[in-house]
Amino acid sequence: MDIEYGKTLYVDLSRRTSWVETLPEDVVRRFIGGSGVAAWLFSTMASQGGAAAGELSPFDPANPLIFAVGPLCGTSAPTSGRHEVAALSPLTGIYAESDVGGAWGSSFRATGFDFLVIKAAADRPSALVIGPEGARIEDAAAIWGADSFETSDHYGAKYPGSETACIGPAGENLAPIACIVHDGRDARMAGRCGLGAVMGSKKLKAVVAAPGPGPRRPRRIHNPEAFAASAREMARKNPVNAEGMAKFGTAGSLGAFYDAGDVPVKNWLLGAAALDIPGISGQRMAETGLLEKRFFCTMCPIGCGRVIRLSDGRLGGGPEYETICLFGTNCMIDNMETICLANEKANRLGLDSISAGSAVGFLMEAYERNEIRGQDLSGVEPLWGSSQALLRLLDLMAAREGIGDILCQGVAKASQRIGSPEYAIHVKGLELPAHDPRAFNSTGLSYATANRGACHLQSLSYNFERRLTLPEKGFDLPQDRFGTERKAELVVATQNFMSLMDSLKLCKFAIGGGTSATTALSWLNLATGWDMDLDEFFLAGERIYNLKRLYNTRRGISRKDDTLPGRILKEIKGGGAKDNLPPDLDASLDEYYVLRGWTSDGIPGAEKLAQLGLQGL
Amino acid sequence: MDIEYGKTLYVDLSRRTSWVETLPEDVVRRFIGGSGVAAWLFSTMASQGGAAAGELSPFDPANPLIFAVGPLCGTSAPTSGRHEVAALSPLTGIYAESDVGGAWGSSFRATGFDFLVIKAAADRPSALVIGPEGARIEDAAAIWGADSFETSDHYGAKYPGSETACIGPAGENLAPIACIVHDGRDARMAGRCGLGAVMGSKKLKAVVAAPGPGPRRPRRIHNPEAFAASAREMARKNPVNAEGMAKFGTAGSLGAFYDAGDVPVKNWLLGAAALDIPGISGQRMAETGLLEKRFFCTMCPIGCGRVIRLSDGRLGGGPEYETICLFGTNCMIDNMETICLANEKANRLGLDSISAGSAVGFLMEAYERNEIRGQDLSGVEPLWGSSQALLRLLDLMAAREGIGDILCQGVAKASQRIGSPEYAIHVKGLELPAHDPRAFNSTGLSYATANRGACHLQSLSYNFERRLTLPEKGFDLPQDRFGTERKAELVVATQNFMSLMDSLKLCKFAIGGGTSATTALSWLNLATGWDMDLDEFFLAGERIYNLKRLYNTRRGISRKDDTLPGRILKEIKGGGAKDNLPPDLDASLDEYYVLRGWTSDGIPGAEKLAQLGLQGL
Repeated sequence: MDIEYGKTLYVDLSRRTSWVETLPEDVVRRFIGGSGVAAWLFSTMASQGGAAAGELSPFDPANPLIFAVGPLCGTSAPTSGRHEVAALSPLTGIYAESDVGGAWGSSFRATGFDFLVIKAAADRPSALVIGPEGARIEDAAAIWGADSFETSDHYGAKYPGSETACIGPAGENLAPIACIVHDGRDARMAGRCGLGAVMGSKKLKAVVAAPGPGPRRPRRIHNPEAFAASAREMARKNPVNAEGMAKFGTAGSLGAFYDAGDVPVKNWLLGAAALDIPGISGQRMAETGLLEKRFFCTMCPIGCGRVIRLSDGRLGGGPEYETICLFGTNCMIDNMETICLANEKANRLGLDSISAGSAVGFLMEAYERNEIRGQDLSGVEPLWGSSQALLRLLDLMAAREGIGDILCQGVAKASQRIGSPEYAIHVKGLELPAHDPRAFNSTGLSYATANRGACHLQSLSYNFERRLTLPEKGFDLPQDRFGTERKAELVVATQNFMSLMDSLKLCKFAIGGGTSATTALSWLNLATGWDMDLDEFFLAGERIYNLKRLYNTRRGISRKDDTLPGRILKEIKGGGAKDNLPPDLDASLDEYYVLRGWTSDGIPGAEKLAQLGLQGL
Repeated sequence: MDIEYGKTLYVDLSRRTSWVETLPEDVVRRFIGGSGVAAWLFSTMASQGGAAAGELSPFDPANPLIFAVGPLCGTSAPTSGRHEVAALSPLTGIYAESDVGGAWGSSFRATGFDFLVIKAAADRPSALVIGPEGARIEDAAAIWGADSFETSDHYGAKYPGSETACIGPAGENLAPIACIVHDGRDARMAGRCGLGAVMGSKKLKAVVAAPGPGPRRPRRIHNPEAFAASAREMARKNPVNAEGMAKFGTAGSLGAFYDAGDVPVKNWLLGAAALDIPGISGQRMAETGLLEKRFFCTMCPIGCGRVIRLSDGRLGGGPEYETICLFGTNCMIDNMETICLANEKANRLGLDSISAGSAVGFLMEAYERNEIRGQDLSGVEPLWGSSQALLRLLDLMAAREGIGDILCQGVAKASQRIGSPEYAIHVKGLELPAHDPRAFNSTGLSYATANRGACHLQSLSYNFERRLTLPEKGFDLPQDRFGTERKAELVVATQNFMSLMDSLKLCKFAIGGGTSATTALSWLNLATGWDMDLDEFFLAGERIYNLKRLYNTRRGISRKDDTLPGRILKEIKGGGAKDNLPPDLDASLDEYYVLRGWTSDGIPGAEKLAQLGLQGL
């Protein structure tokens, strides 16, 4: 077999050299692509035995920064334009990965490469320009200090038809919650885990994917007719099933999730409050004309992205569900204008809105509890609901000034300096996204065991307690969110499934429209000519999940870290979550580890590693 | 008889002349002094028939500004050093009066005058210096724009042994909630009704009482031995009975009033909230060493004034109970540092802390209700509990800039521009002080009928439902605060009694220590040689009360204005006030008007006017 996937561009920023390698097809078949292959690349470089894995530090030049598209990127498969960014996280100290939409991935792929591995560090502000001829390292002193929109404009003008991945001031200043910004004002983010700070530590302002003008050659497909027919069918189906997502974006679900008690309110203390929820919803954006148009990632038929009028009068990305929750309800802010401004500011500065909003909520609680004094607040008055505090703290976090330097370390580290760990809402150092384990019973176990720390996307299991099914794994109907049966099984199954989606680099919002595991596998087989069956496919998902866990165990992760904040475990919050608390976590972990084939301490067992072919990694 | 009281200095700022008249003893016997005689002086000048009374406007040069001490000022009677300021109010449009402590009154009296009547207006910034030789008008251009502390320092240095009454920027800018500041940093205020703006409208920066150095001749007393013996006895008695007031100041009662549900919380919405009440109490001031020493008004044995370290490192007045409630609990602020800073700022700027705090609370509610937009807020974020908003709004109110120009008109007028009159908490345009009609059943009727608008001091009736008695009027025991019997009778009796205290210029805090109506009358008789009995004394009190009402009816006041905010009348607030609401106000007014001899529309009847000798006024 001869698949067109796996061309990898290596760049050494220190030696200012680059070279190309092509991945063995076997690696792709075993790790699929995107997230899976990025983890394999990272592991082979960073984890040369247990000792080295533990020694690498996030801002060490040896920390490899990896960009990866999926094996369907450059095909007509709906939502196939996404990409992955990975490295060791400066926020959590464990494996970091972030899944990104937009147009950067497909532009990068159009240069002829599928993977970019950035090694070492530049000695001065630099940009990396990737074209069909390979990589060129440019001086970026002139644009160092600029925000992400300006940076994107700069390289967009310089390289017509290019797309830019870049950092804002937050990344330059090594703020551990800095993200990597793609698509300029439309702001598609490698948001979580502080990957922007890794880029900053390499003095790398931008990675410009510049395939040049003209038509882009599509990826070679093994069975193009069948592939195109299936892709067409799914592209038709998806917009119909995702009509709400198209009309109202991710923020269209705010009301429903709020009613379910799933939304964080007042740093996760409350299940409901006197907040104008409709006023900050996707529906309101559409009704009031705030929504100017939709943003579509490459090959996306849904278009959930919101395009609004930014403060400079130009069009750009509007706030997503997660941003509205963490900047909004979590800080008791229900002002749409504030949330839009904060969203734009975070985008320009290059800050992860989930972690940043969570840090602000944490500070507001510390302030309310009188656990932080006036002189330590850099002139900010972090009252619940304060738009000014939110906006000012974003600046301070990106600049790492005063209180901002503490908050930008994330709530886990911040809570060792100010306030108290009691209400620092994170898992493994990553702040919780806006879905509450008290509202969906699978979410707690899902967060506790997610490889990058508290993450809803590594299983999306709450959506399988709501609307989605996974018939390939015996979940023929949506599960009962307050039930306790089969939760560990659901989490394992959905984590493995999402590992596959993240490796194929397909969008999870397409699942409800019919992009099932079976469909995704069929595309992979049609594209590659393989005859992979569902067992092999899910085994690959399991392998990918285990590979990341294996690396993390070498960083010290074990059962003790598979936990949830005390507030989430023990405090009833009312609202639509009623009096529900997550199922007993210890019992859930016992069940989960058995299903995973991990020891009772949460370490992948030798038998499991052998079954997955991960020995020696 | 030949009493030493009534020497009146008239100044015409426009014609730059002054002259002296002595009041007929008959006027003093009928109106006692201070508040009563000031009202008589005002009425005779401003109320030449109904038409003229209605035509005068507060910033009209013809609006006379009157300073008055009492007939016991310059004697050894405890707490006899107070004075009164009166004019037509720019805040309420009706008669304004304010009772002041400190040392200005006794210094003014030491110049040989008992009354100062300032007529017309200067054409440029001026100061009035009063000495034994009379009045001198000085240019004040150099000090115009200075804050009240600087102004006081300036004249204090220029005229050794003098005391200054002055305005800050708020008064200069004609903010209708501006006050007149006495005693510099110790800040004894003619706080209510906007008298500082009247002074500003006359371009009068300061009135300096400069009796010159050397011993001050005491007031001539008819029966000096008996007077001195009684005064000595009362001076000994008062500190014992007011031990809490001495140790903890007015703010020492915060906890007790809060527990009683008497304290405004969140613009009078709540009876209790998660606020650190002990943290902003007078007890805390004492325990933490914030309290440096006590401030004593002239001839006061109690010393309830708090002296703290101000932000410039110098000593000066700390916040009173009213200030702590209106700047603090009413705005959901429970930070002592903030309250001290706001208190100092209001003092420097010359703003009434009750009206100013009330305006801030009103804005905070309007903001929470989304009834005011971001662009109208002058960059302020008026969140509940915001120290920054409070402090910034004080500046804006004094400068009459942006939102501050609206708020400094008081909540009644502000609510016609922003927010809604529904939660503008005032009576007749004067903001409620920090005692809640839902906690003490006499308070509502007392506020509704107080001559200057919502005022607790014109009856102090809630304290007669708590600790005080008025045996001279048959109230031998403190009344039941939640009872309904004899409330109108109590309000009439205490209003008349307080009219007497305000006219004698004795402090109401001395009542609990034995300065009863009987004692006060005995001092008046011993000083003057009169043989006034309690009936005549209380009739004088009634006369004084009616005179002010009479003037106000000429300004359009009638039953329709004798009301309370809907929130106070109808909304249960919980906390220590439990589910109590004020007794039916219409029924109370009916009873009150009958007791007063007023018509059912609240107009003093002809028979009553004849009985009081107020015909033709």
